[in-house]
Amino acid sequence: MKWARFLRGDNISYGIVENSGVIQQVSGDPFTAYSVTGVEYDLNEVKILAPVIPRMLYAAGPNYRGHVEGMANRRGSQPVYPIFPEPNFRSVHAIIGTEDNIVIPKDCSGTVQPEGQLGVVIGVDARNVKKDEALNYVFGYTIGNDISQRVWQGGDRTMFRGKNCDTFKPLGPWIVTDLNPNDFHITVRHNGEVWEDFYSKDQIWDTATWIEELSRYTTLHVGDVLWMGTQGADGDMFPGDVIEVEISDIGVLKNYVVAED
Amino acid sequence: MKWARFLRGDNISYGIVENSGVIQQVSGDPFTAYSVTGVEYDLNEVKILAPVIPRMLYAAGPNYRGHVEGMANRRGSQPVYPIFPEPNFRSVHAIIGTEDNIVIPKDCSGTVQPEGQLGVVIGVDARNVKKDEALNYVFGYTIGNDISQRVWQGGDRTMFRGKNCDTFKPLGPWIVTDLNPNDFHITVRHNGEVWEDFYSKDQIWDTATWIEELSRYTTLHVGDVLWMGTQGADGDMFPGDVIEVEISDIGVLKNYVVAED
Repeated sequence: MKWARFLRGDNISYGIVENSGVIQQVSGDPFTAYSVTGVEYDLNEVKILAPVIPRMLYAAGPNYRGHVEGMANRRGSQPVYPIFPEPNFRSVHAIIGTEDNIVIPKDCSGTVQPEGQLGVVIGVDARNVKKDEALNYVFGYTIGNDISQRVWQGGDRTMFRGKNCDTFKPLGPWIVTDLNPNDFHITVRHNGEVWEDFYSKDQIWDTATWIEELSRYTTLHVGDVLWMGTQGADGDMFPGDVIEVEISDIGVLKNYVVAED
Repeated sequence: MKWARFLRGDNISYGIVENSGVIQQVSGDPFTAYSVTGVEYDLNEVKILAPVIPRMLYAAGPNYRGHVEGMANRRGSQPVYPIFPEPNFRSVHAIIGTEDNIVIPKDCSGTVQPEGQLGVVIGVDARNVKKDEALNYVFGYTIGNDISQRVWQGGDRTMFRGKNCDTFKPLGPWIVTDLNPNDFHITVRHNGEVWEDFYSKDQIWDTATWIEELSRYTTLHVGDVLWMGTQGADGDMFPGDVIEVEISDIGVLKNYVVAED
């Protein structure tokens, strides 16, 4: 199933997206309980929102060898591969939906950089979960774009403004259930040109391992989102640019880059 | 006013705590709208919960010179003072209330360490707020204890497990309004012995400056909590220990240290 959260007039609802391009509105939400209302819209009649606002948004530390190498190359240093899975946190207030604007802060160096990410949405509270059962705790999969300001990221002590300014966390367009997290093909396109093209099977640690490791220390709660890392280290985006992250069997997360007023 | 969130039977409510030790239950919440129900309890008839579960819990980077020096001393290095205010994030899932247990994870070195923190609770959404108006966006003040596992904190790439295991973020006991954030006296007591004794006027950057700086990049939302840093670098806590953080005009946040089963 394909679940979207959408705005129609002043109302926010969840809905089931059909291949025909129709969205079936539900009452409730897919994580706890819902019922189909019988109301349906064409996708172009509604505004698609980020499919969930998690209580916690986790971002895997380096999880593709090519990202470690690309970032080291940017810094002119040798790559240092991680030795165990460690997440960082992202601001849930920075989340925006597909088709929304990414705003470049006026006091930064003037550009931001994308990172296409597989998003894993937790469906059942998980604590001390073993790897071979970990995927039972997943509700479904979505797409993230971990917008970064590399100058701040490189020089600041924390990743607060380098990764977490308002609008820096595009998420969506929807959540798709019943997929295999090791089978995704991920593409990042900048103004239509392919910047990254990679496969989730090349993660240093797979999704199930991340859930096992995180849940040893923290309860993963329903609706929490884990981003599974990115490949490569992409170039600069300027106002006027369009950035898309596409994941096979999920869809396309598309955002526009603008300058802060 | 002194606002507590409490459990009575299966119901969670907010209430106004009076100096007599009576809590006046309200419906609604103090951040949006409430009305007094007329029901009152003695404080010892209810379970006090963390006074708010914020959407984001920010922790100031080093904000007292003594903490920078104490941590450098632990590492055997020279102190490096921060040059501008930068927060980190803490897991909102790790929040517990006063009188709750801090659980030492079984795979760590066996101890955890406290950090007494002034907690600032946002009352009005704040973006691009100037310092001289920043305190108008504060709802009130509470107490935090930024429980840390220093071995993990020192060796890990991120502070995920070093600062954010379940139960590592005691918060409470309540929120007190209409106080001056530069006038607090903060005391940390370990099994009754004073470990730290400091004053909020010694913050490297004051609360208003932190709100100005954070709100330049992110919207601070109603109910978000900012921890304003700690003084010193405290010793080890073991199972069976009791840790208290007291802040003048607010109260005492008291927690028990236990080992994971």
